[in-house]
Amino acid sequence: MSDFKVIEIKKSVFENNDREADRLRAKLKEDKTFLLNLMSSPGSGKTTTLKGTIARLKDEYKIGVMEADIDSDVDAKTISETGAKAIQLHTGGMCHLDAGMTEQGLDSIDANEFDFVILENVGNLVCPAEFDTGASKNAMILSVPEGDDKPLKYPLMFTICDCVLINKIDTKSVFDFDDEAVVERIHKLNPKAEIFFISAKTGEGVDKWCDWLRKEIDEWNK
Amino acid sequence: MSDFKVIEIKKSVFENNDREADRLRAKLKEDKTFLLNLMSSPGSGKTTTLKGTIARLKDEYKIGVMEADIDSDVDAKTISETGAKAIQLHTGGMCHLDAGMTEQGLDSIDANEFDFVILENVGNLVCPAEFDTGASKNAMILSVPEGDDKPLKYPLMFTICDCVLINKIDTKSVFDFDDEAVVERIHKLNPKAEIFFISAKTGEGVDKWCDWLRKEIDEWNK
Repeated sequence: MSDFKVIEIKKSVFENNDREADRLRAKLKEDKTFLLNLMSSPGSGKTTTLKGTIARLKDEYKIGVMEADIDSDVDAKTISETGAKAIQLHTGGMCHLDAGMTEQGLDSIDANEFDFVILENVGNLVCPAEFDTGASKNAMILSVPEGDDKPLKYPLMFTICDCVLINKIDTKSVFDFDDEAVVERIHKLNPKAEIFFISAKTGEGVDKWCDWLRKEIDEWNK
Repeated sequence: MSDFKVIEIKKSVFENNDREADRLRAKLKEDKTFLLNLMSSPGSGKTTTLKGTIARLKDEYKIGVMEADIDSDVDAKTISETGAKAIQLHTGGMCHLDAGMTEQGLDSIDANEFDFVILENVGNLVCPAEFDTGASKNAMILSVPEGDDKPLKYPLMFTICDCVLINKIDTKSVFDFDDEAVVERIHKLNPKAEIFFISAKTGEGVDKWCDWLRKEIDEWNK
C-alpha cells in the first residue's frame, strides 16, 4: 500500500547556504542520521536504483526517502510501495534543493527517527551541483544511454560527488559507451570518486554499491 | 576540418525577459532568420539529431549553430565538422539561456547572414523551459531510455515546446517505453504539439522532422 505526504517546499531565507549546510550536517551527525544526496539527469534510473538499494538495506537500517520533484508524485508513490517511509517534496518549479529546503524536508519526515535518509534531488546535472544540501555524502547516477562524454560537459557534478553509479549497463549492446574512458574522465576531475557499474533493472553490481553505503552509514552513525 | 569560436556569455542586464524575447523575435522575423531553440536532458541526442538535420537541409538553407554548454567545446567541434557554421557559447555555470544571452550568441555568429539558426540549449529539462529565448519555435528531444513518464515530471518543458522529438527508437527492445502513453501525456499538456518518433543514429523518422522544419522555416522567412 502506498501512503505518503506531499510537502510544498518554500524558498530558503538563508543568505549563506554553505554555513547552513555545515550546520545541518553537524546536526545529522549528532542525530546519527546518514543523509545521502542522490543526483542525476532525468531518466537515469534514480528511483529504480533506490528500490533495489532499499530492498537490500531495509532489514539493517531504518530508511526514509525524500523525493524532490517540481510537480509530480510519481516517485514517492513508487518508493512508498517498498515499505520505506517516503515523502514527496514539491519545489514549485525550483531546479535544485539547498540546505534550507533540505531541512524543511527532513523536519517533515522526522529524520532523527531514521538511520539512513535519501534525498532524491531534482533530475538535473547543472543546478543541484551548485548547492550543498548538508548531506553526509553526495552520489550521482550516469546512465549508459546518456554517453561517456558527460564528465566533460557537466564537470562540477562529477567533481562534488563522492560516488558515481554508472547505470543501465544491461543496455550496452545498443550504445557506444567506453567504460575506461568514462572512469578516466571522472577520476581526472575527482581522483577519489568511487565508481560502480550497475544495472538497477537486473540487479548486477548493486550489492557492491550497497557495501559501500553500509560502510559509509556505519562510519557516520557510530 | 573543424573551426569555431568560443564565446563567453555574460549575465543579461534586462529586467523583463519576456519583453526582450519579443523584441528579439521581431528582429529575427525582419532579418528572415528562423531561430530554433532545441532543448533536452543531457545525453538525449541533441547533437546527433542536429548532424542528421543539417545533412538534410544544408543545400537548401544557410545554417548556423550555437552550442550552449557550461564548459566544454565537444558539441561545437562535432557540428563544425558537418560544414555548418558553429560557435560554442559558454554560460559560465548558468543553467539556461535567456533572450539577452541568446542575442549575444546571435551577434557573435552574425545571425542575419543565416536563414536558419539553431540554439542547442544547456542539457536540462527544468530551467531552460522558464526562459523565452526569443526563438521562432521551441523543440525538445525526449529519448526512449529516459522513460515515458517524463511529461508528468517536467510538465512545463512539454507545454512550451512546439515540437517534441522522441529519439533513440532503435533502442526500444531494451526499454519499456509506451508510445501511446507518451503521446497522450504530451497532448494532455499541449494539444498542438507536433510529435515525431526518430532515431538520430539510424536516420529513421528524421525526414519527417525535416519536412516540419522546412514548412516552419519557409513560413517564417517568406
